[in-house]
Amino acid sequence: MRFVDLIARKRDGLSLTAAELQSIVAGVVDGTLPDYQVAAFLMAVYFRGMSPAELATWADSMLRSGIVLDLSDIPGIKVDKHSTGGVGDKISLILAPLVAAAGVPVPMISGRGLGHTGGTLDKLEAIPGFNTQLDIETFRRLVRELRCGLIGQTAEIAPADRKLYALRDVTATVECIPLIASSIMSKKLAEGIDALVLDVKFGSGAFMAQLPRARELAQTMVAIGEAAGRKTVALLTDMNQPLGAMIGNSLEVIESCDVLRGGGPADIRELTLALSAEMLVLGGVSATIADARATLVKLLDNGAAFAQFEKIVAAQGGDARALSDYSRLPVATQVVDVVAESDGVVHGFECAEVGRAAMLLGAGRATRDDIVDPGVGLQMHVRIGSHVRRGDLLARAWVSDRSKTDEAFATLRDAIVLGDGPAVAGPLVLERIDASSLAP
Amino acid sequence: MRFVDLIARKRDGLSLTAAELQSIVAGVVDGTLPDYQVAAFLMAVYFRGMSPAELATWADSMLRSGIVLDLSDIPGIKVDKHSTGGVGDKISLILAPLVAAAGVPVPMISGRGLGHTGGTLDKLEAIPGFNTQLDIETFRRLVRELRCGLIGQTAEIAPADRKLYALRDVTATVECIPLIASSIMSKKLAEGIDALVLDVKFGSGAFMAQLPRARELAQTMVAIGEAAGRKTVALLTDMNQPLGAMIGNSLEVIESCDVLRGGGPADIRELTLALSAEMLVLGGVSATIADARATLVKLLDNGAAFAQFEKIVAAQGGDARALSDYSRLPVATQVVDVVAESDGVVHGFECAEVGRAAMLLGAGRATRDDIVDPGVGLQMHVRIGSHVRRGDLLARAWVSDRSKTDEAFATLRDAIVLGDGPAVAGPLVLERIDASSLAP
Repeated sequence: MRFVDLIARKRDGLSLTAAELQSIVAGVVDGTLPDYQVAAFLMAVYFRGMSPAELATWADSMLRSGIVLDLSDIPGIKVDKHSTGGVGDKISLILAPLVAAAGVPVPMISGRGLGHTGGTLDKLEAIPGFNTQLDIETFRRLVRELRCGLIGQTAEIAPADRKLYALRDVTATVECIPLIASSIMSKKLAEGIDALVLDVKFGSGAFMAQLPRARELAQTMVAIGEAAGRKTVALLTDMNQPLGAMIGNSLEVIESCDVLRGGGPADIRELTLALSAEMLVLGGVSATIADARATLVKLLDNGAAFAQFEKIVAAQGGDARALSDYSRLPVATQVVDVVAESDGVVHGFECAEVGRAAMLLGAGRATRDDIVDPGVGLQMHVRIGSHVRRGDLLARAWVSDRSKTDEAFATLRDAIVLGDGPAVAGPLVLERIDASSLAP
Repeated sequence: MRFVDLIARKRDGLSLTAAELQSIVAGVVDGTLPDYQVAAFLMAVYFRGMSPAELATWADSMLRSGIVLDLSDIPGIKVDKHSTGGVGDKISLILAPLVAAAGVPVPMISGRGLGHTGGTLDKLEAIPGFNTQLDIETFRRLVRELRCGLIGQTAEIAPADRKLYALRDVTATVECIPLIASSIMSKKLAEGIDALVLDVKFGSGAFMAQLPRARELAQTMVAIGEAAGRKTVALLTDMNQPLGAMIGNSLEVIESCDVLRGGGPADIRELTLALSAEMLVLGGVSATIADARATLVKLLDNGAAFAQFEKIVAAQGGDARALSDYSRLPVATQVVDVVAESDGVVHGFECAEVGRAAMLLGAGRATRDDIVDPGVGLQMHVRIGSHVRRGDLLARAWVSDRSKTDEAFATLRDAIVLGDGPAVAGPLVLERIDASSLAP
């Protein structure tokens, strides 16, 4: 079968066989399929989608394109969490040590931030000395000894995804649920996990702004995970306003430590508990979500989760003292207040624009090659429902390079939607999707 | 504007501006747009189509990508004919000298056959010495002196089409009406013609088997022609059985000469008259189709059309004596009869398969690099409605290399659909489409 005939079959909405899909992934990885044919195939997939059976094979082929970690010699049911990305989303920094403290191994391989979203690696690297580029053997040792390792994607994991993503990025085929879902899941399933919890965000700060699209993405990823024999649960969570108050790498480490010591913003604590409780049930250490939450609350409030984070940070070369003495974290010294220019009630956020304001200050990347400044960022002082008067503090900004602060602050102000009358935020966790939610 | 954003706009069904489309064609020609992005764009066009305004710009940009002949110094309204290709379609060989004999200049640039369809150049080159690779100056002189030149596509005409076609061929984006229409029209409009008649075929031997698709292609091409300021008329014609009896290059020259001398099969004569009459009206030498037909019948029956062909053949280096003394044409010496294996009435043809049978004998090309054998081919002895008894002659074959005759004859027999009860072929010319047929 010539590849052009496979492109035509996908173009016409027909199914491809497992062998055909495997041959395409193999051809992408070894370079025997020319980019122009792969590009046409990806655009055909954009329009025609993939069936559940096709997707299972496609994601499986992608994950097997590189090394697949085998952590079966480490005791316990290994569970990871993945978020589709948001603004102020520092949940992984809290959840990973918390769940590990509860006895569930968390082998977490994370990405960097791009555009309006932050990345877990960037946040961790704000801690002086923290090394996310560990080799696989060290990672295995950490998961065995501390039930947690926090590292970055390596070139050896799912190389098919890296090649496909590079092509999708320049051919307008990024925004395609089967391709997004298989990209995420191929990397996660290569981690050697037994189960996975997905935080799939919807709203103005989410990659999938519309709830139905977010739901479809969640269902698609759960289906891929289950087809691969991994229990997979997704929560659909609200990203219509920043998570917590802090946006920016050192600032988010500070806020995470507050939560790990039992304090911090209510939304961060709540979302962490919701996702972590699923992991404890999947990990077999709690029988019910309620039991799991009770366990987790105790670990936050008694300092055990924080102590676990200190150990992990130290084991990965980081300065654990910085988790208590925030003066050891790189924080910009110039602080600027952003105040309201009119009266009103905060009815909502153009949340992606809030993230972009932080990015303009240097907290994130416009392109992959940009360098982030760990010390800059925003502390939000308003949330949906806040009453604001002209001159009130909207946000405090930590800045270093001032060349883009005007643009950043204008972007931030424009992103805060003021209205008349009261406003209430929607529920933080809207839906839960697991295997039982999927169409038979 | 980055090209990836233009791909996304087309993907989302939005329109591109004239400047954007021009920049894409320019980027294809100068190689600055990578093939993988062009491939994704073409697949997006496959799914989203192009608006009439987009198509007019796209075809115009393609035709201007190379040299555009200017024949305005040659007296008369220059008119050409293009066929979407069929089996036994030798109309150009008759029509070009006939219309020229009637006083309308016909600057005809033709293609070669591929797959089940024959090509005008291949048929002309069966005439010993006939040279289709004339330079543009010689072509101009022939159009001026004989009102007709018959040459092949040169690399200088519409190079954008050549590049795009090569990419479409390997990315499953050939079967896309806007891309087909702009490919054909860009080459035709670069010929320096003032008007164009299109023979758009439907049926089992046509590129567009389904009538609605053929109609859409015809409408699309007429719209492009009219947008370019050229009067364009399309006839939708039946290709459910071979045109005439002969399939194969020398054989079709023989049949063409029969028609040019006033004889030959009725369907060939009729289709030639229908298309030629449109050209005479467009060319301003006849006021009505009826007047034109009367003129044309006279030119066929009094030998003037044949004499014109003799002059053209001689002027292009061909042996004009071969047009009367067929022994001067290369014709295979082995003749094999293909007989019926059962009784019945011919209810139809898998007409593309009839063409493929001739191709297997060597009369056509499976791939662009194949060499055709001018001497081989088929003479069909049955048409729709023919009563056949076991042992009756279905076709006579002229063969040289006998390695594929078994496959060719089996293909041919399978392509003749026998049934019970009478059968009647549909009308040869089903519809006429011109500017007035298009939606306003």
